[in-house]
Amino acid sequence: MEDLPFTLTALREAYADGLRPEDVVREAFRRLDAVTDPGIFIHEAREAALAEARALGASAGLPLWGIPFAVKDNIDVTGMPTTAACPDFEYRAESDAFAVARLKAAGAICLGKTNLDQFATGLVGVRTPYPVPRNAVDPDIVPGGSSSGSAVAVAHGIVAFALGTDTAGSGRVPAALNNIVGLKPTLGALSSTGVVPACRTLDTISVFAFTVSDAWEVFEAAAAYDAADPYSRLLPAPVASPPPPAVRIAVPDAATLETFGDGVQADHFRATIARLQTGGAVVKEIDFEPFYAVARMLYEGAWLAERVVAVGDRLVEAPQTLHPTTRAILEPGLGLTAVDAFGGLYRLKELQRRCEELVQDADVICVPTIPTFVTMAEITADPIGANSQLGTYTNFVNLLDMCGIAVPAGTRTDGRPGSVTLLARKGRDALAAAVAAKVEDGLLGATGGSRPAASAKVSDVEADEIAVAVCG
Amino acid sequence: MEDLPFTLTALREAYADGLRPEDVVREAFRRLDAVTDPGIFIHEAREAALAEARALGASAGLPLWGIPFAVKDNIDVTGMPTTAACPDFEYRAESDAFAVARLKAAGAICLGKTNLDQFATGLVGVRTPYPVPRNAVDPDIVPGGSSSGSAVAVAHGIVAFALGTDTAGSGRVPAALNNIVGLKPTLGALSSTGVVPACRTLDTISVFAFTVSDAWEVFEAAAAYDAADPYSRLLPAPVASPPPPAVRIAVPDAATLETFGDGVQADHFRATIARLQTGGAVVKEIDFEPFYAVARMLYEGAWLAERVVAVGDRLVEAPQTLHPTTRAILEPGLGLTAVDAFGGLYRLKELQRRCEELVQDADVICVPTIPTFVTMAEITADPIGANSQLGTYTNFVNLLDMCGIAVPAGTRTDGRPGSVTLLARKGRDALAAAVAAKVEDGLLGATGGSRPAASAKVSDVEADEIAVAVCG
Repeated sequence: MEDLPFTLTALREAYADGLRPEDVVREAFRRLDAVTDPGIFIHEAREAALAEARALGASAGLPLWGIPFAVKDNIDVTGMPTTAACPDFEYRAESDAFAVARLKAAGAICLGKTNLDQFATGLVGVRTPYPVPRNAVDPDIVPGGSSSGSAVAVAHGIVAFALGTDTAGSGRVPAALNNIVGLKPTLGALSSTGVVPACRTLDTISVFAFTVSDAWEVFEAAAAYDAADPYSRLLPAPVASPPPPAVRIAVPDAATLETFGDGVQADHFRATIARLQTGGAVVKEIDFEPFYAVARMLYEGAWLAERVVAVGDRLVEAPQTLHPTTRAILEPGLGLTAVDAFGGLYRLKELQRRCEELVQDADVICVPTIPTFVTMAEITADPIGANSQLGTYTNFVNLLDMCGIAVPAGTRTDGRPGSVTLLARKGRDALAAAVAAKVEDGLLGATGGSRPAASAKVSDVEADEIAVAVCG
Repeated sequence: MEDLPFTLTALREAYADGLRPEDVVREAFRRLDAVTDPGIFIHEAREAALAEARALGASAGLPLWGIPFAVKDNIDVTGMPTTAACPDFEYRAESDAFAVARLKAAGAICLGKTNLDQFATGLVGVRTPYPVPRNAVDPDIVPGGSSSGSAVAVAHGIVAFALGTDTAGSGRVPAALNNIVGLKPTLGALSSTGVVPACRTLDTISVFAFTVSDAWEVFEAAAAYDAADPYSRLLPAPVASPPPPAVRIAVPDAATLETFGDGVQADHFRATIARLQTGGAVVKEIDFEPFYAVARMLYEGAWLAERVVAVGDRLVEAPQTLHPTTRAILEPGLGLTAVDAFGGLYRLKELQRRCEELVQDADVICVPTIPTFVTMAEITADPIGANSQLGTYTNFVNLLDMCGIAVPAGTRTDGRPGSVTLLARKGRDALAAAVAAKVEDGLLGATGGSRPAASAKVSDVEADEIAVAVCG
């Protein structure tokens, strides 16, 4: 039991062999206790989870029956507090977020609420008044954020999957830093009902798991149109599909590949691209500057005002209840005018056109998930600058209405986890996932467990069996 | 020649009988001189138009060969001044707007630039430092705006069509007030390159003509994707199509049909709907309040800031160069914050969802184009309030990303022109036009000429000949 990897396949096999859901819940909390990290969960639901496990009944074909999961603490779970890592903001949720309700209905068991950069503002995971979660792979580097606790919980094998949110990269950066998969769906594919907003026009729930296949299954179970969420979109139901035989991949060219001097990261990225080419991919190098220009708009431009809207009167009336870094980031948003906002929308529209032209011949874009690593010492010395670096390859994605999936791509030569992200146009989540499954490699999170052979669910389908069913 | 109606069909027949384009240009300016209204054109291009006419050569199948047209003075025409009705803003255009270039390439001849509410802000046509154009049907009522000169020029038969722009209703309200057709395409169908913006996210060029068929032909010739315009959209090329046999039409219910006490207008609208029902349409009454709520956002909400962006530093640095009413409308936009702007976007998104739900079973919406008439005396007494009334059925359309066409629907019992607008989802311009062609009725503009039988181009196609080719 202690060696049981919390992948969907392994858990299902164990259940088939007689394991009970309450055994899994107990083992999950034993693992949590064993890592002795009080920063992972803001709220642990030990008793509630055990009660849910006992009440599950027979599996009856439920796709996530008995699967333990964690929920970022800016997403509502009935009866649990929601804090967004701001204790003064805390309220007790009276109902499940739409996506959480779907996962519970599919048989999954929620173990609690995880830590985050306050109000999901940050990519480092240290901007919290609660204890900072320790990176599961290497405690000297930041855990990553804003979905810090969710990523660390998965990386330790405490849960089989966890929900994060992703506006600027909060569902991808911590995946890279903790050696797991982070799936950031197309905006509007997962309902935002019951989610504390960060930037309402750019927010989405995201999914952390050990493997592409597991993340995809969770996404399939959670995705549905929600008439009550104005930002929910009528998209085709997600259907796994194989990549095209000679998938066309755009990558940053040599002049614009940015790793802030981290040659190991650059080498690892190039080696990963070479693997994809060996597998039949057609790679095209592109000028990445327009994407960086979009990325800079997220915190330097009008969208900062969306975060101000999300925090509300607190910023003016009770600023002392905010984390000092969060407050410092948000305050300039108060001075932005509506003229600035529309100016930003126009500038974005122009850059969108340039980016579209650069990738019009590509099926997906492949980038390093992070340009380099940030240590705890570095983020303490420079709380904002070091954070910005981490968003190099993530900040532009939601502004460009793309979907993406961060995936472990084997260990770097220095032993740190390697990660790349596959990006695709809105609605092409299945395509991004299929290419990601081709490249995923290495051990499971921080557990030392071996990666299972790729699941038929995402990548072993032959190209002539299923047509690509999800389109933009 | 003096009796020749400037419809496409009549002009083509006359050309086939030996008439020359320069004869038509001379006749057009003779008609302009005859109406003795110095407010219609800001720039008359008599010599340039004659030169163009002489240089046309053989028709060679050009769809608009020898067709005279006018261009609203916020759209560039090579070599002519562009003023947006602000003399201090004037510049000489070095190239044609994208849409103008397409129309010229199709053989049309531009006679000049027409008057407008300054910076296209207004629905009345009187907010101009130039002489106010007189309404072509009745000089006691306002000409309508902002595309005042374009509508009046068509209504008098001076040109066969004219370009306007339409953000809040500037391409539809003056059509209703001057008894002509006003086609407002789906946003992004006609390029905005070479157009002075009003609200960049909501602007479109529009087309005035005597008949639905003529307006449609002009739209077909002008529409094309423009990679240089970030707001241009990849839409299927417009193709005329018949309405479905039992077209489903949503109309405001009795409680929310707003005519500001004008019972004649309400009666005319109901009679028009009854005609459509007789023709096989299935009519459903809906609560129109959510549409009015959207309409109110255009001038009371964040979008005012877009108009401030469009006017630029002028509002602060040279406010005396603005029309007093325009200035009074724009100034509050300076005080709007980015938080207001995003708050407006969120509110719109919620209202969009409610509106979509109300019309999900309908093919088109039919509304009166204007709720009632505004006299010159009334607009002088209340320059802003009377203007707002005119936008009742137009202000919400671009915010909801719909297309529409205003069409004469026969004379009201008091002799004033009756007009309804058919609205449809984005991309369904052909559907709206096909229903409009079923209802168009009455004499041509202010000319006294008879409306020709509906042209095969839009409405005489049998339902089983062509499938509806343009979809949302």
